[in-house]
Amino acid sequence: MGIVVQKYGGSSLADASSVKRVARRIVESRRQGHDVVVAVSAMGDSTDELLDLANEVSPLPPARELDMLLTAGERISMALVAMAISDLGFTARSFTGSQAGVITDSVHGRAKIIDVTPGRISTALDEGHVVIVAGFQGVSQDTKEITTLGRGGTDTTAVALAAALHADHCEIYTDVDGVFTADPRIVPSARKLDRVSYEEMLELAACGAKILHLRCVEYARRYDIPIHVRSSFSQLEGTWVVPDAAADLPEAEDMEQAIIAGVAHDRSEAKITVVGVPDKVGEAARIFEALADAQINLDMIVQNISAAATSLTDISFTLPRADGQTAMKALAGLRDEIGFASLLYDDKIGKISLIGAGMRSHPGVSAKFFSAIAAAGVNIQMISTSEIRISVIVDEGLVDAAVAAAHSAFDLDSDEVEAVVYGGSGR
Amino acid sequence: MGIVVQKYGGSSLADASSVKRVARRIVESRRQGHDVVVAVSAMGDSTDELLDLANEVSPLPPARELDMLLTAGERISMALVAMAISDLGFTARSFTGSQAGVITDSVHGRAKIIDVTPGRISTALDEGHVVIVAGFQGVSQDTKEITTLGRGGTDTTAVALAAALHADHCEIYTDVDGVFTADPRIVPSARKLDRVSYEEMLELAACGAKILHLRCVEYARRYDIPIHVRSSFSQLEGTWVVPDAAADLPEAEDMEQAIIAGVAHDRSEAKITVVGVPDKVGEAARIFEALADAQINLDMIVQNISAAATSLTDISFTLPRADGQTAMKALAGLRDEIGFASLLYDDKIGKISLIGAGMRSHPGVSAKFFSAIAAAGVNIQMISTSEIRISVIVDEGLVDAAVAAAHSAFDLDSDEVEAVVYGGSGR
Repeated sequence: MGIVVQKYGGSSLADASSVKRVARRIVESRRQGHDVVVAVSAMGDSTDELLDLANEVSPLPPARELDMLLTAGERISMALVAMAISDLGFTARSFTGSQAGVITDSVHGRAKIIDVTPGRISTALDEGHVVIVAGFQGVSQDTKEITTLGRGGTDTTAVALAAALHADHCEIYTDVDGVFTADPRIVPSARKLDRVSYEEMLELAACGAKILHLRCVEYARRYDIPIHVRSSFSQLEGTWVVPDAAADLPEAEDMEQAIIAGVAHDRSEAKITVVGVPDKVGEAARIFEALADAQINLDMIVQNISAAATSLTDISFTLPRADGQTAMKALAGLRDEIGFASLLYDDKIGKISLIGAGMRSHPGVSAKFFSAIAAAGVNIQMISTSEIRISVIVDEGLVDAAVAAAHSAFDLDSDEVEAVVYGGSGR
Repeated sequence: MGIVVQKYGGSSLADASSVKRVARRIVESRRQGHDVVVAVSAMGDSTDELLDLANEVSPLPPARELDMLLTAGERISMALVAMAISDLGFTARSFTGSQAGVITDSVHGRAKIIDVTPGRISTALDEGHVVIVAGFQGVSQDTKEITTLGRGGTDTTAVALAAALHADHCEIYTDVDGVFTADPRIVPSARKLDRVSYEEMLELAACGAKILHLRCVEYARRYDIPIHVRSSFSQLEGTWVVPDAAADLPEAEDMEQAIIAGVAHDRSEAKITVVGVPDKVGEAARIFEALADAQINLDMIVQNISAAATSLTDISFTLPRADGQTAMKALAGLRDEIGFASLLYDDKIGKISLIGAGMRSHPGVSAKFFSAIAAAGVNIQMISTSEIRISVIVDEGLVDAAVAAAHSAFDLDSDEVEAVVYGGSGR
């Protein structure tokens, strides 16, 4: 049997007894004959506790030192997991990101993995050890400084290790049973997906589903690593994230291809509207250059045709709420230059996204989506689409109702998804 | 001005506010124009907390993983100290033992420093940074594994860095004002020493004074690094540990050389007596070989001449209490072979040691010491001496009385130490 990479997050490693439970789980895979490599996060809330400590010491801690501090969290959990494994009669070796050969760029706090050189891991596997690797961290290529990958980075560590080691697959253990058609806290009838494609998972992650880190899915797609998202608290099969949702796994042959994978939502954005922009070549570019200069990542952008009488148009876009004030300030400085009428800011919004690779080939999905939301009495403020996603912006207080309405309109809570949609006005 | 190395222990780094206090102290030295390198321990009780966690997970954690775990403690404190310094407008870089070039042997849990290659530290100093180094840890030369130096190892880290960087001196910050003539908890009138020689400090550390780690003093003596032991809670001058107590510092010229540096005590030992050993060549060697095979470090060893009538002798020795059962077992196995009469075990003992380089040239010191102890009604069970030390074993419950009696017999609580001793029966 080949190599399996497993990832355990902080909620699976809350205390000593859960560390021992995780160790039993790892040993089980080892007993089955796999070579096992495990990426771990810091225990429970310990990253937040370290951040609190940093903020007590300094209101604006240097990024290099913050990375040095936070990487202590995984160091603790990986050593404890290795101890618990040895207590079960197996041997384990823990390695920091640097020792494991996780090479990154030099951007502290949100470094990108450039390369993985897993020489020490391979040697340890050859010697019969279980290997435990600190997630979320690496060492910069040029400066040999300790870096972190940002929140959720341990998912990415696990997939990067799986790719570098040519693992069979990567198991992401979490505190839920898998990827659901919607957030079960909002839609209790949400159904666990057996499989979902990389593309769908990317859209789900980008649209607010917090189960997998966006970069981890991108990495898995690039290197074609199947991900198995499952609970560390049960033995149930979870959700497989795979190259193509239906085709690659033989047991999927008898299943109908689902059109819709799920409904995601996101309450972390705000909306800005630039009102009365002169409809001339280059005006929009100047607005978005100013926002780019301020390092702001935009999400949805909508511009309608201008009213013929005035030659003025309105441009709306969404962005992380945390960047709201910075963006408004950058735009206010452009007012005289561009000559727009006013700026509107609204952070009481939410985004609902319908995601499914099947919508490529099925017309009428958007009509059904919009009707369902309208029927729930929710007004749509903005719309944007990709090939396999439709997103709408609605009032923040109406997000739950809109999610539930969309979810049942597409029969996602039934066990057999056959929401084939006919007719309607195109997408 | 040159390089100063400072060491701050866990009691000086108990929480965020004490981290900030330490940072202010460091910045003060930087402002005076020194290049400052700081070795830090883990915060407060965090090493014990990590050990508790390890014991919850595994009753016998592998030494490699225990080192990996414990080194997280200094990583946290060094990053926080660096942040606090940057908050005061100076820049700081923290380095792990491995990054700082602290090269050790491969003995996990009690590694020895083989070499220090402080390239990254020197570069950071040249760039104008304050350098913070994780104490207590290093990386093994052959296997590149993370090691720890054992309890108190941060003192050794600091002195080793001072030697490698050719620092002017090494400041060891602690929670007391310096080295005292006796433990002030037992002898409230104990006096702080202004200076003490390496040799005296070595004997004090070996005899139970906990203020400095034995290996740190050995290292300082070998590389001739003056150590300044002082409190991180006050601005007072502490105790200088220097090549020769009086000669090297000009301000010492008007001071009389003290005969006695202090009285140390130790309650961590046990005593074993092998009764009725045949007085033949090689019998003692067989006993001590058996103990060496069991990896037991002995302290005092006493053998008297045998009684002429029986040709039997008694051999007594002291050892760490923790090794008592192992030693008794090893010796019991030799009984038939050697033919001794019985084994006695006593762990209700304490050791009192009188230490002073001046006793070399002053006869009568031991007579005065023994008389003082006798006058306090304390019976002496064993005696052993070195050139600058006299140690006695007494009943554990009488340790405090014996220490106090010896301390005042040598006038150690007065500010001028002139306890010149005449006459007596030699040493």
